[in-house]
Amino acid sequence: MGEFDLIERYFKRPALRADVGVGDDCAVWTPRLGHQLAFSADMLVEGRHFLSTVNPHHLGHKSLAVNLSDLAACGATPQAFLLSLSLPRADEAWLAGFSKGLLELADLHACELIGGDTTQGPLNIAITVMGDTPQGQSILRSGAQVGDDLYVSGHLGDARLALEAFRGTISLPQAALDLARLRMECPTPRIALGHALRGIANAMADISDGLVGDLGHILNASRVGAEIDTSVAAALMQTGQLWSCPEDLAMTCVLSGGDDYELVFSASPSVADQVLMASEASATPVTRIGRITDSQRLVLLGLDGQPVTLPLQSFDHFA
Amino acid sequence: MGEFDLIERYFKRPALRADVGVGDDCAVWTPRLGHQLAFSADMLVEGRHFLSTVNPHHLGHKSLAVNLSDLAACGATPQAFLLSLSLPRADEAWLAGFSKGLLELADLHACELIGGDTTQGPLNIAITVMGDTPQGQSILRSGAQVGDDLYVSGHLGDARLALEAFRGTISLPQAALDLARLRMECPTPRIALGHALRGIANAMADISDGLVGDLGHILNASRVGAEIDTSVAAALMQTGQLWSCPEDLAMTCVLSGGDDYELVFSASPSVADQVLMASEASATPVTRIGRITDSQRLVLLGLDGQPVTLPLQSFDHFA
Repeated sequence: MGEFDLIERYFKRPALRADVGVGDDCAVWTPRLGHQLAFSADMLVEGRHFLSTVNPHHLGHKSLAVNLSDLAACGATPQAFLLSLSLPRADEAWLAGFSKGLLELADLHACELIGGDTTQGPLNIAITVMGDTPQGQSILRSGAQVGDDLYVSGHLGDARLALEAFRGTISLPQAALDLARLRMECPTPRIALGHALRGIANAMADISDGLVGDLGHILNASRVGAEIDTSVAAALMQTGQLWSCPEDLAMTCVLSGGDDYELVFSASPSVADQVLMASEASATPVTRIGRITDSQRLVLLGLDGQPVTLPLQSFDHFA
Repeated sequence: MGEFDLIERYFKRPALRADVGVGDDCAVWTPRLGHQLAFSADMLVEGRHFLSTVNPHHLGHKSLAVNLSDLAACGATPQAFLLSLSLPRADEAWLAGFSKGLLELADLHACELIGGDTTQGPLNIAITVMGDTPQGQSILRSGAQVGDDLYVSGHLGDARLALEAFRGTISLPQAALDLARLRMECPTPRIALGHALRGIANAMADISDGLVGDLGHILNASRVGAEIDTSVAAALMQTGQLWSCPEDLAMTCVLSGGDDYELVFSASPSVADQVLMASEASATPVTRIGRITDSQRLVLLGLDGQPVTLPLQSFDHFA
């Protein structure tokens, strides 16, 4: 199977919203009037972001999910994406699974595959995604206000728990391992919540490198500090009901685990009811974990309400 | 040096046209009113598209040039790009050269780096580029008309000649080798010509996989055939005046060499003078190499005007 057959068979579909889709030098797209565009790019590398043994269907899903998560963090509506794929060989079973997982998630969000590139080389998946928001309604990292409540969506820490289990540092009951693995391999981009929080959240980011690290980006960009109630945060693991996670491991997983693809955002206490409505409208759980302060620092509060110190580090590819 | 330092030091610059550039979850961009967007993505892999010994400044240039070439082929004006980069290690000398070559070319075309990703892994450079054209003025592969003249820009075959020299299949005089190598490592995207051909060219593509293969895309999309005058084509090598290239090698290099990043386009004979004016306005040589026919086939004509048969194959990563 040649390069063009491969694209034709697994990745080329009729253009829907695109004026020109896969198959010309460029894809051509007419933006919606009165809208701003949001762009993000993420690259997944075998051995770094996933193991060679991962289910290709899950990998296809995750490759797009991590990109959609960035759109969610801006409150953007997905529109289109480009896929650049480096493959050691044209393995049809792998391609069938990968493209199915990828395109199922794309269809779920009406996000159209409009172009890309295919080449031979070490397995590498690079996606650029485009979404849009009505002009001026993108939610940025820089808008957090002193006094804002601090929230996270969904569950945190389970992907890191799976990683620890794969590394052999812990042993999990099968049910907890299965759930943790699914959270690691098939994250749910919080598009609907991000959308519902337009005009409500003051600042937002997605949690890919760990809560503390990604919240840190909001604090830096907004020039504020924050307090996190660690006992509330530590209860956010979805696997929490399936086994008894040691407290220090739970803290590490939730606060600096990474690979969560949940949203962390701040909103004024005066719109707390609107945050709840956005949560219900998007069928996405939301938990208040703390507040924005003028301290310029991130303070973790223990059970007793006193600051605690934890050795935390968010993920850095070159650290 | 960590991931964020690396981005900060080599790739983050103040947002110019972007509403939000590098450093949030997404870049935010307001499209120009009345314009369509053109998108393309290309991925370069070490050992496949370039050798580890390549000058990083040249590699930075080429990584963006091959993407800009796709915009040129649509007649689009470059606007912005995203860079996803997988690196074995954070080598500062390499990064300094690479980013310089990349950003110099970006600045030359006012194409703004608005986002991307950096990770550790085998060297892989994935760029997605965005340009725009006034609504409806993109030049597609599908518009060629029977009777059109067929043109190419600039020079062809020199990059392939360099590849043959590196492979050791030929020996070149130093001056020819230097020029051929420069053509391979530092292609010039024909943005100005593509722009000038809006409303003039009926169909256009860039030549990345070889003239015959890329012209083939135009013929398939337009459901037409073509004749190429091979003696005119074979004279298009820029190295042609520096050494005496054997005729069969010249044919291979020019017709199916690849890595040229020139434009192949068709235009009605009635606008031949406008093609010349576009060539002059963009300071880009243009050569008429044949015409579009209704034969549904690509016919190569020899010196005597009779069809010749050559064993040609355009580049395919999985063939």
